[in-house]
Amino acid sequence: MTYCVGVCLEKGLVFMSDTRTNAGVDNVFTFRKMFTWEVPGERVITLMTAGNLATTQAVVSLLNERMKAPEDRQPGILQAETMFQVAKMVGGLLRDTVQTQSEKGPESEATFSATIIVGGQIAGAEPRLFLIYPEGNFIEASDENPFFQIGEAKYGRPVLLRGYDPSISFEDAVKLLLLSFDSTLKANLSVGMPLDLLAYETDSLNITGQQRIEEDDPYFTGLSKSWGEVLNAAIRQLPPFSFASKDS
Amino acid sequence: MTYCVGVCLEKGLVFMSDTRTNAGVDNVFTFRKMFTWEVPGERVITLMTAGNLATTQAVVSLLNERMKAPEDRQPGILQAETMFQVAKMVGGLLRDTVQTQSEKGPESEATFSATIIVGGQIAGAEPRLFLIYPEGNFIEASDENPFFQIGEAKYGRPVLLRGYDPSISFEDAVKLLLLSFDSTLKANLSVGMPLDLLAYETDSLNITGQQRIEEDDPYFTGLSKSWGEVLNAAIRQLPPFSFASKDS
Repeated sequence: MTYCVGVCLEKGLVFMSDTRTNAGVDNVFTFRKMFTWEVPGERVITLMTAGNLATTQAVVSLLNERMKAPEDRQPGILQAETMFQVAKMVGGLLRDTVQTQSEKGPESEATFSATIIVGGQIAGAEPRLFLIYPEGNFIEASDENPFFQIGEAKYGRPVLLRGYDPSISFEDAVKLLLLSFDSTLKANLSVGMPLDLLAYETDSLNITGQQRIEEDDPYFTGLSKSWGEVLNAAIRQLPPFSFASKDS
Repeated sequence: MTYCVGVCLEKGLVFMSDTRTNAGVDNVFTFRKMFTWEVPGERVITLMTAGNLATTQAVVSLLNERMKAPEDRQPGILQAETMFQVAKMVGGLLRDTVQTQSEKGPESEATFSATIIVGGQIAGAEPRLFLIYPEGNFIEASDENPFFQIGEAKYGRPVLLRGYDPSISFEDAVKLLLLSFDSTLKANLSVGMPLDLLAYETDSLNITGQQRIEEDDPYFTGLSKSWGEVLNAAIRQLPPFSFASKDS
């Protein structure tokens, strides 16, 4: 399983993904699920993947191959003129890969399906964030739906719904995302550390911050511990329930 | 969909369930998913169901029919000597019902599966809480796993994991369960108000508190509103993330 979140803020975009992949519980590996392409001053594009690893790696490899073969007639995401074109390109590759793997070869019980979040900015337009379905179609983040989650999304959703505010800083957004990941990591073994993080500030056209948060990261372990305490204090603050009296 | 939680406390047992059932989004009904049998001073048994409504209603009807026909050779849950026997009986009925519906009649895309939480106390033994699978087998709550959730369990799990403490009062336990339901209701339309609540105090052998919490319940609406505020205040209390400096 996987957990990835992409968030639109007034200041820009923030992406976070875990790195665990598993087939059953005994084939556990660490694989990068966040991929970034940067042409400083011109474009920053980030992509995160959930689902069949062979499918998502094929899509990323195809994106990279197109870049290395500029004589190829097909333009790559570094040639795309808008983020909408990037999303269309990624969606097309995803649909073709899922379809090819499903139709050819021996039958498999596994599903070849995958879902992708892609976001970023190309000079001359606003930053944009898309959620791409295995069928190749996609939706865009909006004021009403300012973030996308893929993979094991349910455990970490309540704190995001309650804590999200478009005006928060990158530092507070990363804190909120880490709380959402903490809830997920506590509940589901197939989502695992380390986490990949990328922040992109609107109109900078350069990666603003990018790092890997390791299992023993002191900020994350401190946050996880304090969260239990402040959450319990918050629950205690609320008035207890009173049972209706039996006479009434 | 459904959301039900059964919790073991030092003081006793607490049960909460929603009441929404739906087939698709346009066949939405309110149905009771919590059923209680009480012989004051002798036994209190509570059962909550998730899954195919025809299956779970059949199981409850079979349990009730056995009670009304005492000359019947098969003893019912009011004759069972222990809660373990009750769980075995419910598990057997559930397995048989799922199997009959799956094997007979026209094929259906729908699944006839269901899951049940059953708990209570019979005079002379401790209170016990069981989770019963569609296959008829079951597991019992323990100190390590002191609560069971069935149905749409993921959204409401993080707050339960963080907030549960076996020593809390019934009033605080209901508050915690309502927070767990609030997270679920906010995220999933197929879980809906009103909620059914039952509290059972160890060795009382009588229902301690039982009520339906309606959509406009002032305590619940106040709790839901305050929860957003205290949760955000709790998040703000935590130190923000700092990006590693690019030089390091």
